[in-house]
Amino acid sequence: MTDSRIQADHLRAKIMDAEAAAAFIESGSSVGMSGFTGSGYPKAVPLALAARIEREHAAGNPFRVKVWTGASTGPELDGALAKADGIEFRLPYNSDPIAREKINRGEMEYFDMHLSQVAPMAWQGFLGPLDTAVIEVTGIRPDGSLIPSSSIGNNKTWLDRAEKIILEVNEWQNPALEGMHDIYYGTALPPNRVPIPLVRPDDLIGDPYFRCDPDKIVAIVRTDTPDRNAPFTPPDETARNIAGHLLEFLVHEVKMGRLPARLLPLQSGVGNIANAVLTGLIDGPFDELTAYTEVIQDGMLDLLDSGKLRFASGTAFSLSPDAAASLNGRMDSMRGRLLLRPQEISNHPELIRRLGCIAMNGMIEADIYGNVNSTHIMGSRIQNGIGGSGDFARNAFLSIFMTPSTAKGGKISAIVPMASHVDHINQDVAVIVTERGLADLRGLSPKQRADVIIANCAHPSYRPHLADYYRRAREHSFGQQTPHLLAESLSWHQRYVETGSMIP
Amino acid sequence: MTDSRIQADHLRAKIMDAEAAAAFIESGSSVGMSGFTGSGYPKAVPLALAARIEREHAAGNPFRVKVWTGASTGPELDGALAKADGIEFRLPYNSDPIAREKINRGEMEYFDMHLSQVAPMAWQGFLGPLDTAVIEVTGIRPDGSLIPSSSIGNNKTWLDRAEKIILEVNEWQNPALEGMHDIYYGTALPPNRVPIPLVRPDDLIGDPYFRCDPDKIVAIVRTDTPDRNAPFTPPDETARNIAGHLLEFLVHEVKMGRLPARLLPLQSGVGNIANAVLTGLIDGPFDELTAYTEVIQDGMLDLLDSGKLRFASGTAFSLSPDAAASLNGRMDSMRGRLLLRPQEISNHPELIRRLGCIAMNGMIEADIYGNVNSTHIMGSRIQNGIGGSGDFARNAFLSIFMTPSTAKGGKISAIVPMASHVDHINQDVAVIVTERGLADLRGLSPKQRADVIIANCAHPSYRPHLADYYRRAREHSFGQQTPHLLAESLSWHQRYVETGSMIP
Repeated sequence: MTDSRIQADHLRAKIMDAEAAAAFIESGSSVGMSGFTGSGYPKAVPLALAARIEREHAAGNPFRVKVWTGASTGPELDGALAKADGIEFRLPYNSDPIAREKINRGEMEYFDMHLSQVAPMAWQGFLGPLDTAVIEVTGIRPDGSLIPSSSIGNNKTWLDRAEKIILEVNEWQNPALEGMHDIYYGTALPPNRVPIPLVRPDDLIGDPYFRCDPDKIVAIVRTDTPDRNAPFTPPDETARNIAGHLLEFLVHEVKMGRLPARLLPLQSGVGNIANAVLTGLIDGPFDELTAYTEVIQDGMLDLLDSGKLRFASGTAFSLSPDAAASLNGRMDSMRGRLLLRPQEISNHPELIRRLGCIAMNGMIEADIYGNVNSTHIMGSRIQNGIGGSGDFARNAFLSIFMTPSTAKGGKISAIVPMASHVDHINQDVAVIVTERGLADLRGLSPKQRADVIIANCAHPSYRPHLADYYRRAREHSFGQQTPHLLAESLSWHQRYVETGSMIP
Repeated sequence: MTDSRIQADHLRAKIMDAEAAAAFIESGSSVGMSGFTGSGYPKAVPLALAARIEREHAAGNPFRVKVWTGASTGPELDGALAKADGIEFRLPYNSDPIAREKINRGEMEYFDMHLSQVAPMAWQGFLGPLDTAVIEVTGIRPDGSLIPSSSIGNNKTWLDRAEKIILEVNEWQNPALEGMHDIYYGTALPPNRVPIPLVRPDDLIGDPYFRCDPDKIVAIVRTDTPDRNAPFTPPDETARNIAGHLLEFLVHEVKMGRLPARLLPLQSGVGNIANAVLTGLIDGPFDELTAYTEVIQDGMLDLLDSGKLRFASGTAFSLSPDAAASLNGRMDSMRGRLLLRPQEISNHPELIRRLGCIAMNGMIEADIYGNVNSTHIMGSRIQNGIGGSGDFARNAFLSIFMTPSTAKGGKISAIVPMASHVDHINQDVAVIVTERGLADLRGLSPKQRADVIIANCAHPSYRPHLADYYRRAREHSFGQQTPHLLAESLSWHQRYVETGSMIP
């Protein structure tokens, strides 16, 4: 019998169905799942686990697990387990709407982390043991090494740390993925850390396969299920305007000699605006671009197809259903141009600082001094999480944050007197862009920043109110480094909570 | 004629007095000064410049300069120039009381920066040209290379970037300093950056001297003036209690196998509490310690003298007058145990992450969720600046923040419902210590952090008020990831501004 996906004969005895595999997971245990955005997450065992949890709950038995992943996952994982009320603790990132609702009702504990730090923190030990790893792979080689799937995330660390391993072998993943991964095995805990030998986005510093102790494998489950990401909406005028301001700025920086003609490795967050910027680069003047980023989304793929982008390194594909199907059908043509790495490497501060990435991330709001909130709506309600934005913003050559100037039909201003939560301190924010314009904050004091943010980025309907707050703060603030009127600095947010609108 | 300090014959013609040297500095220009804390800053030319500015102002002529340094300096620099109203823009750090007052009255623009990023940002170009460098050195060698002084800071970058160079040769500095510096010349702008080849705190990766283009030197001024730092007060009971909690925690971490028996390279901020912790280590169980830190203060020197600390790398001495005099008298005995580096290396994220530093920094306040304010009193009035705390906290193996639980005789609580300014996001804060106890926040969700911070760190007089806020926030907050009542989250600070006390 030949089996192109499971070539390790000695492991075939471990093949079973998802229900049998899920029975290895115990209540109260920590489970390290694969998955980074809707790519490469296990698609059968979490569903079987959720069903088991529902049965246990129906029988009056408590059953919840701690779920560690790469980042967000698909509905078959976070959605199903959250719906079953099966997650007691979640790290490091979530974008599932059901899980989000549980978190914001206070029913699930959520540890929102810098994505580069998940693997090192797991090794540090204070998160406790990792009982089980559930990892999707493309295939198992004769020697038992694993061909990774469409995301890497923390899979290497989960495989190394877990006591038990459950593998899902997904036949939907194109076997041409083999060789398009670079798994670095040189990490260590201090004092044994050494320089990471990567100096270009396309440097290969690791192996194409995961190592895996066969004695830890308790189950292998076959699947044939597509990755599931949300579709992107086509860029609207707002997104195109943001992209336009940003491209104009990049052109200007090259002209001033402050950026190379080929720019520097691009990092781009997920979402429609990020996608619009990448699409905008297709018609831009820059050639031979590279990307050193976290996720490779539709716009990045289009940019590769256009020939403008030479190479992209990330930790996951994060593609719309159409783009995922398209890439899956021609994976082999992308060999040498697309590479996936562990997220501790894709997001490593050492590498981001060395490469000098141009970091482009979305945000919820910025205050007039340039402090950015990426995570908490009205200061308390988490949207997704900080993800890799802190890894990139702190260490980038250029740290850019982008947002429409308003949300909810104008009822929320993205520029506020004081951020209701801070994820990126003003020192880590070089440029803010809205559809109204761009604020280049580099080298400016807080008051200089306020002038340019209010003038260039705020929506006209909020601009006079911001200017009024700032003028009065300059008269009455306790101190004048970062002038504030504390009795009203968060009043816009409070008004939204009370009335559904920030408009005075 | 022999001149032990100025051995480069071809440069002797440039020797002049400070007044003549100060005449090279133009109004409106940017001046890069040496100096990092009260060490190695120029002591004559800034005074002469301040006198010149006062004369110009008396004659009705505007005269102000932009001052770039390593960090804070001495009263002869920041104090004299601020008093003369001679600074229009200041970066990257200030602790001078006269300058602080000007900044907080809105009379001086202050760009508060991560200290590791000053040199790279100067190279990036957006700060504009650096017109003049004024650098204190210990001596000039026959080939024109420079023996650094008691701090390195950004001197290499100022010498490389400035159009004109003024040197102060300070005979007070011990000639035995020669060879106790390691100036790394491998930095570059991206895409030309390479790994920094340092893997141990005592690795030598550079030269003991500054290179200096002789054609750029316009003046050499002789001085014989001591460095001037404030004396430390002996540790009081509060500081000793903080140190006690921290040492107990470190012992526990070693016992749990989460820290090596020799710990990991220590980073310690400036101040009496940091000093108390270092002093506490003298009687602690740890041997063969190392430090990879920003400044080397009295406690670090005592720890070296005790034999417990094997080696300390920093960018500056920051010693009390007594300790400075003592070290200056026996500098040679510290050879091989003390080393000064450029601040972009002492504070480099790549190296801090690789070495896995234990970072111990002071703070102004933390909120119940572990967000830390290091810079702004009541959210608007700057105290000093973020300094290197962000460089270390983000990348440390263990990021610890310490403070007494109250200030101003109990009228200010260091634990507040919401931080009035955020320098260190909760993701970068692993441990908070006050004299009341220690909160180990690693791996905890925001609500779990609130429980332990309120219970372990808050002063008993504020604890019930914090618990009450938190209980009501859990009932009424818009979201429950980080529960807040926005109408009162900053009311403690507002009450202090209005009444001089946070006490309800």
